[in-house]
Amino acid sequence: MPAPDAILVNGRALREVSALDRGLHYGDGLFETIACTAGHARLLELHLERLGEGCRRLGIAISDTALLRGEVAALAAQAPRAVVKLLLTRGNALARGYAVSGAETANRILLRFPWPAEDPQLAREGVRVRTATTCLAENPALAGIKHCNRLEQVLARREWTDATIADSLMYTSGGTLVSGTMTNVFTVRNSLLQTPRVDRCGVAGVMRRAVLQVAAATGIAAQECTLHAADVESAEELFVTNALIGIQPVRELDGASRVPGPVTRALQAGLRRLFHEDAARGG
Amino acid sequence: MPAPDAILVNGRALREVSALDRGLHYGDGLFETIACTAGHARLLELHLERLGEGCRRLGIAISDTALLRGEVAALAAQAPRAVVKLLLTRGNALARGYAVSGAETANRILLRFPWPAEDPQLAREGVRVRTATTCLAENPALAGIKHCNRLEQVLARREWTDATIADSLMYTSGGTLVSGTMTNVFTVRNSLLQTPRVDRCGVAGVMRRAVLQVAAATGIAAQECTLHAADVESAEELFVTNALIGIQPVRELDGASRVPGPVTRALQAGLRRLFHEDAARGG
Repeated sequence: MPAPDAILVNGRALREVSALDRGLHYGDGLFETIACTAGHARLLELHLERLGEGCRRLGIAISDTALLRGEVAALAAQAPRAVVKLLLTRGNALARGYAVSGAETANRILLRFPWPAEDPQLAREGVRVRTATTCLAENPALAGIKHCNRLEQVLARREWTDATIADSLMYTSGGTLVSGTMTNVFTVRNSLLQTPRVDRCGVAGVMRRAVLQVAAATGIAAQECTLHAADVESAEELFVTNALIGIQPVRELDGASRVPGPVTRALQAGLRRLFHEDAARGG
Repeated sequence: MPAPDAILVNGRALREVSALDRGLHYGDGLFETIACTAGHARLLELHLERLGEGCRRLGIAISDTALLRGEVAALAAQAPRAVVKLLLTRGNALARGYAVSGAETANRILLRFPWPAEDPQLAREGVRVRTATTCLAENPALAGIKHCNRLEQVLARREWTDATIADSLMYTSGGTLVSGTMTNVFTVRNSLLQTPRVDRCGVAGVMRRAVLQVAAATGIAAQECTLHAADVESAEELFVTNALIGIQPVRELDGASRVPGPVTRALQAGLRRLFHEDAARGG
């Protein structure tokens, strides 16, 4: 994937941040990866809500949300199709060490990337997925939010180089399914849609939330619960989600073939309707 | 504590880093905090060894170690007493997402801070310590190394503002003692020195290693083991360590008084000898 074609640091067209940024020193920040299509930042309100929740949990004083919304929207408007990454750190360190003075001013860093090489076939036919060796540690204090402490994902992503593998399923050391490295994961069995809880580990993905909304709106029974490898193996349908890919069925897991099923297709159709509504509503 | 009086980014006197730095995006980096006294970077070889181990574990291609050593030594030489923070990130992202291309070039960021307001009384009389509510998650893949995913420490440090509290003891959710937010911790009982293992959680502190070396050299029996709150409560001696403070006895834990003991005093004396030897050996 190419380099970003636009970077905004605190509203200015800069390419650098302070060497004192606490995001750099401690991963003390949050991020959102936003799909922008036809000049519109998709599901932006859901992204901003999650960011707000992350700020509340970490005690980061969020800069003006309207300002953030406007900056993302402006970046989205200038490109027919793009990915905007919004990174919000606690700000520059005012002292050495972990302590927060409370006087820090959050730094907002927006990067716009060209849309990745598209493969519509993946949404239709599905993706190849593997299982990670790297485990995810559990900490309720950090679960659910999209913070910048992502070394576990970096290590898990280093486990494979085969470009035809889309993602890797990650478990806790106790064997509980959490997510992919960059996706949430859903199973379907007996018409019941299930996805791992994110109260001890994992990220409450914006697309995960959208899928659960679509399920509720279309009468598909859904549940956030505890899943293990056996549940994944015995699932009739299996798919992964994130803000860019929407829903991608898993057509192969660790070399074993799988077939996309009717619940996955119904949710993909519902998601397309949701995107249209969001685009019609949004700026 | 005041702002840094010198910053070097990849050998240049800059104050900024790229907005694409993976340290900023994912905490994808490592750091060392080095005490510099009389123009000498204390225990620099131990710091560089740990950094090297962190690079090996995370798969970061370390830039020339001799270059790093030289830059730290030069910053140390220019000030009678200072703290040098060495931050080494995987480098600038060459693409969006967690994947490492392998072609990244590590970024080295050195910051020199004035020595903190000194209180020699603390090493003599001891420090006040509390117990953290925030837990540390366990992940062997990240244990022991001083990586930049430090949100747990940031959250734990936000639990108190009383400037007379030196640190907070942290446990896993299962009740295993790990460390302070910025210190390692040792107990003494029946003349046996004990400190938590760091193979599932925590940082293998440079001063922790130095203390274990001193114990071995002076015939004090020592053990890395699993400790719980009851072991801390019943310990005859309790002290915390880090690269800046050396050994500080705990004189109060959660409001209960404690008295520094003879093993702590012997180790403090041994550490002073070690520092002298290190300064005599070092540049």
